[in-house]
This record gives sequence, C-alpha cells and structure tokens, in this order.
Amino acid sequence: MKVLEDRILKDGVIKPGGILKVDNFLNHQIDPSLIHDMAMELKRLFGEKGVNKILTVEASGIALAIMTAYVFNSPMVFAKKSKSKNISDDVYSVKIPSFTHGNTNTVIVSKEYLHEGDRILIVDDFLATGAALVGLRALAQQAGAEVVGAGIAIEKLFQGGGDKLRAEGMHIESLAKISSMSDDGKICFA
Amino acid sequence: MKVLEDRILKDGVIKPGGILKVDNFLNHQIDPSLIHDMAMELKRLFGEKGVNKILTVEASGIALAIMTAYVFNSPMVFAKKSKSKNISDDVYSVKIPSFTHGNTNTVIVSKEYLHEGDRILIVDDFLATGAALVGLRALAQQAGAEVVGAGIAIEKLFQGGGDKLRAEGMHIESLAKISSMSDDGKICFA
Repeated sequence: MKVLEDRILKDGVIKPGGILKVDNFLNHQIDPSLIHDMAMELKRLFGEKGVNKILTVEASGIALAIMTAYVFNSPMVFAKKSKSKNISDDVYSVKIPSFTHGNTNTVIVSKEYLHEGDRILIVDDFLATGAALVGLRALAQQAGAEVVGAGIAIEKLFQGGGDKLRAEGMHIESLAKISSMSDDGKICFA
Repeated sequence: MKVLEDRILKDGVIKPGGILKVDNFLNHQIDPSLIHDMAMELKRLFGEKGVNKILTVEASGIALAIMTAYVFNSPMVFAKKSKSKNISDDVYSVKIPSFTHGNTNTVIVSKEYLHEGDRILIVDDFLATGAALVGLRALAQQAGAEVVGAGIAIEKLFQGGGDKLRAEGMHIESLAKISSMSDDGKICFA
C-alpha cells in the first residue's frame, strides 16, 4: 500500500535491534485518515471472507482494529494483558512474548466474546516473529472459532514470522512488507 | 445520548464497589457503530472549538479517541503506561491512580507530540474520580498546550470528579451521565 510505504519512509525511525519506530503516525500519535485508508484496504482484501468479528491485542492494535471493525460493520474484541497471576475460568488465555519489550504477557479474552462458529479477522499493527498472531490464533482456537485471516499494517519479512504462518496455511495480508532495514536508516520494501 | 443510555441499561453490569462493566460494547468487545455515533456527537459538541489534537490514555480510551480523531480530521495521541521506573527527558509524564484497578500508573507522552499552541480535546471512556482527566490535563499543561474540553463516554456523576473539574472551568461533555447505581442493578441517568 503505497501511501503507507511512503509514510514509513518519511516518518519511520530505525532503532538498534531491528526495531522500527512509527510513533509519529501509528503507535503513539496516530493519523486517523491513514488508519481509515488501511481499514478500507483490509475491507477490499478480506471483504468476501464472511468475517463477523475483528480480534486484536491491546494497546497499539486497537486503533486499526476499531476502524476495520467499523468498515466491516462487525464487533471488535481486544485481548487484554492480564494483571493477575490467577486466570479465571471465564476467560481464554495465552502467553505472548513481546519482541519489542523483551518480556512475556499473559493475554486474555472473556469467553463471552469468542464463540464456536465465529469467523475472525485478526488485525495488528506489526508482524515480526509472529508471536502475537500465534497467540491470538490460539485464543480463537480455544473458542472453536475460525481465523479466516490476518490483516497487518507493517510486516518485517526478515524476521520470518509471516512466512512461517503462511506455510501453515494462514491467510495474511500485510499493507507494507519490509524486506530489509539497515542501521543507517535504509528501508527496502518487498 | 439516548442510544448510549439504552445500551448501558441493556448490557451494563454493576459490580461491587461502584464499578460498571460495559465490556460487551465499550471496554473489551467494542461496537464500532456506537463508537462512530459517539464520535459524531463529540464533533457536534466540540466542532467549533478549534480542536487540532485528540488526547487519550491507553488502552480503553483508544477506540473512541481514534474515531473522534477521524471525524475531527486531527491526529490522536495516546498517553502510554510507562514500563520503566526511569522516565527519560524526552517525555512528559504524570502519575494517574486507577479507580478500577486500585493501582497507580505513570503515563507518558513524547514531547514530539504535544506542543505549545495545541488545542486539545481529551477523550476517554469513563469519568469517575477525574484522576485520568487531571493527569491528561497535566500532560497538556507541561507542553504549554490548551485543553479546550473533554469528551467522555460515561460519567459516574456520584463519584464527583466531573463536577469538581467543571468548577475549575474545564468544559466537559459526557454522553451518558449516571446519577446513581444500586447493587441490585438499577441505573439512573441525570
């Protein structure tokens, strides 16, 4: 999606350790017009898939997910980072390691909001190692729901998570695919 | 806003300690059509105020804030809960006690995204004791920005935060104002 690639080139900042900061328009300050364009593109890509629910994980996936939910006219559910060590019986839960923060979060979804028969589109801001996608897929599977696809803003292809999940059959569409980044600030798209 | 009041009566659940759970449509599963209606109402209420930026705090304020930002055609900034004890020089920071969780979070905004001269509309899902509003206003003040108002989904009037801040001159509009809640499930609107 050219408008997103152009914005990454203009405002993205490469940090040591393969981290791309897009705080200017996606992760801290958010450009709602760009988010809407991205949601419309996800509608074009997944509009015929019978999606009835959008699933993401707090916090930085929420903005794209709610706008996607709006254009799909479907509810959005965000998995919450659990503050408690005791996971109650009324939630699905999974552990998700964070590439950016170097820790692991237990994330939960109430059993009230994921069901057998749901056709779920996962939405997230980044795809790198794929850990968040694997976790969200596991939550859907615990509910007996079907993940019909994943719509991602920015995929870092060189971290391999996306291709591994595609090989397992997941339909993933990433709106910008970065094939390489160098510490001197050069970003190449696939 | 009648559609929101009706939804609270239909789907809200009162928990001990003055907590209203609206996980069904606002805080965990989110109804994007309702969020859009609420954003349009905030546009009606604050559309003539020269707002150039929407400010909220992660995580549950983000959905309403990004939709509001979309209808205002202005960027949205969300304050982040700091994971680190060391606050760097390049952020504004404030401590916000959480009524629901019984803890205190340090929240930060990068100095890049709040500026002198900004005319800020604060958006949040709940207003109870007013702690989040006080914190977000303090972040704006650190930047020399002006808070032109606060748009809230649900205000619990009986916790007093809103009236205290109105007495200080803040322009607050809440889309549903709850005057009382009883443990047996009765909710009264102002």
